[in-house]
Amino acid sequence: MKVKKPPAGKSGRMIILAPDSFKGSLPALAVAQAMERGIRRVMPQAALRLLPMADGGEGTLDAVLAARQGRRLQAEVQGAGTNRVTAAFGLLDTPGDRLAVLEAAQVVGLTLQAAHAPPVELRSSLGVGELFRHCLDKGVRRFMIGLGGTSTNDGGAGVLRALGVRLLDNAGRAIAPTPAGLAELATVDFSSLDERIKETEITLLSDVTNPLVGETGATAVFGPQKGITAAQVPELDARLRRLGELGDRWLGRALSAEPGTGAAGGLGYAFQLLGARNRLGAEVVCELLEFDAALQHADWVLTGEGHSNAQTLAGKAPYVVARRAQRYRVPVTLVSGGIDRAGLPQLVPHFAGCFSIMFAPTSLSAAIAEAPELIADCVEQLARLRRTLISTHS
Amino acid sequence: MKVKKPPAGKSGRMIILAPDSFKGSLPALAVAQAMERGIRRVMPQAALRLLPMADGGEGTLDAVLAARQGRRLQAEVQGAGTNRVTAAFGLLDTPGDRLAVLEAAQVVGLTLQAAHAPPVELRSSLGVGELFRHCLDKGVRRFMIGLGGTSTNDGGAGVLRALGVRLLDNAGRAIAPTPAGLAELATVDFSSLDERIKETEITLLSDVTNPLVGETGATAVFGPQKGITAAQVPELDARLRRLGELGDRWLGRALSAEPGTGAAGGLGYAFQLLGARNRLGAEVVCELLEFDAALQHADWVLTGEGHSNAQTLAGKAPYVVARRAQRYRVPVTLVSGGIDRAGLPQLVPHFAGCFSIMFAPTSLSAAIAEAPELIADCVEQLARLRRTLISTHS
Repeated sequence: MKVKKPPAGKSGRMIILAPDSFKGSLPALAVAQAMERGIRRVMPQAALRLLPMADGGEGTLDAVLAARQGRRLQAEVQGAGTNRVTAAFGLLDTPGDRLAVLEAAQVVGLTLQAAHAPPVELRSSLGVGELFRHCLDKGVRRFMIGLGGTSTNDGGAGVLRALGVRLLDNAGRAIAPTPAGLAELATVDFSSLDERIKETEITLLSDVTNPLVGETGATAVFGPQKGITAAQVPELDARLRRLGELGDRWLGRALSAEPGTGAAGGLGYAFQLLGARNRLGAEVVCELLEFDAALQHADWVLTGEGHSNAQTLAGKAPYVVARRAQRYRVPVTLVSGGIDRAGLPQLVPHFAGCFSIMFAPTSLSAAIAEAPELIADCVEQLARLRRTLISTHS
Repeated sequence: MKVKKPPAGKSGRMIILAPDSFKGSLPALAVAQAMERGIRRVMPQAALRLLPMADGGEGTLDAVLAARQGRRLQAEVQGAGTNRVTAAFGLLDTPGDRLAVLEAAQVVGLTLQAAHAPPVELRSSLGVGELFRHCLDKGVRRFMIGLGGTSTNDGGAGVLRALGVRLLDNAGRAIAPTPAGLAELATVDFSSLDERIKETEITLLSDVTNPLVGETGATAVFGPQKGITAAQVPELDARLRRLGELGDRWLGRALSAEPGTGAAGGLGYAFQLLGARNRLGAEVVCELLEFDAALQHADWVLTGEGHSNAQTLAGKAPYVVARRAQRYRVPVTLVSGGIDRAGLPQLVPHFAGCFSIMFAPTSLSAAIAEAPELIADCVEQLARLRRTLISTHS
């Protein structure tokens, strides 16, 4: 892949601004732009590279298209219910390679369902499969699919159905590809699976390591945030288990027990049945953003997220950014909305300082309302400290 | 004066920790110690010098005695009412020089008066004068007197009386050296003023520039925090005006209109009548701490205070620290409990970064309760950033 040459500063080095979004407050690009304003106040001529990050959830498509030449396209597909949604996706063409970047949440996202969501038993991932097929029709044979933030818990039955797999009851009738439909599932027939899948490479972006079913499975762990009650968990988990048994039998391997198959209500399982590879979302985003190429010209990276804690090290974007920069010996400073001090001992070895954007005792709502200004002001302070220390010691 | 040689680090350079107190939360020494803990986590071998600061208010004596060889002594004198208080003071002996460091607040401090305070009309600075005389008796001829945080508004009548000045009514009877007594003031007789005053050098530590009387005078501006109601202001101001007229007549100069005479309810006026010189408290503390000598061996200074805003530049300790360090080209970073972002544009040119100790949206009470840990954690982050940047760029 051709790497665009980055702009060079006086020192020939640049500063990379690579925050994740501040969830509930600011998209990643807006965070990076606020960081830029803060730095410009101190170093108006600094060579900056804005590389807003994502981890496979909402914002992944935006992050990739902000960094790479690519087309943002749309397709109308079925939402999680019977509604139709217009889902955005990205196409990156390079010679001999047509890559699609999908976000499952664009089709069946939790935040999309607020208005006309049917109960979770009636939600299906069918539209995700439709979008996938739409891309196959356009000649795409390489997919990056962000799995974060979905509202469905159908084990990916909808995706399987959209790609030609037949889900049948005892009488050989097609069931609905929903948790409700799966109650009647007796047979899964892969004989008419879309042939193009064989020549397709699918990468799933996710930081979920849960298996499809069981105590740490999709239903038990992620069900509640999708509206599944504790009382429903055993039955809905059992329906995914049945799908998993039939799928595993076809595959010849106990895939449903493997980590990551519980991502996105079992979308992870369905896509992996079809040969997909599960990868840490932020890692894939870094690659799509050609982050390492940028690092070779950088001498400081700022990253961040809405709230940092020990879980940040379980593959969140700031940690992945820090790990990659470490290889090039570029210092990475964390600038987050808030930092859980209990997690500091684990966080600090990975960053050249972990800072919050707070300037005084503040309520969460006030902090969210002022986030862009707080980010700019905080980064300005870091830039001032850095400039002074470098000029004192070099 | 002999300057103790500071410990030298690997680089031969040390870090100075020179915060003011976090008012309402932590004394300056505790702030400096928390900063030290934060730095030690990153640089266990760093050469550190703790120089807790003060500005002439409470904590001034502690700051001086923490940095200098000196004795902490006590004397029992009259408090602001008729109560007796045990007031601490400091004696610094060097060949040919016996210097006393007094804090007016040790005798008539606002925080001392909570329990058995008479109303402000009945409070007197007499005990401050007694303490002064006690020092004269011990051979002291050089005084540094911190004026911050007093509860009296007697124009320094009590100090004058203690040092032999006679305050008389129309019938030639001694009046009480209180605002109530001053209502009857007709004559001020300096003829029996303590003779030793002539050979005494007095420096007042204060950042107050208000005159004794008038709209910006002691009563109008500082009266309310001492319990003077708006309705009382004109009458109590008029009583100080009368004292000022009589004092100015004796002096042959309109001292009562000069800046600083309104400090400490007019203590500033009384001591200046006796030849005292008014100086910015933090400047004097810096000199007593031999701060400049330490700066010659330093390559970073951390300062701070409970809350920073544009007023910090009106002579508060962090600003004085920054101004002195600037002369030696040593970077100074501000680490405060909170920072008023509206004041940042004025603050930032003076500091290598202005940081708050907050790590997340927090209530003021929680921040105060956790201040030592917050300070240590914040300074740790700054030390990590600094270490990484220096090793990257040198």
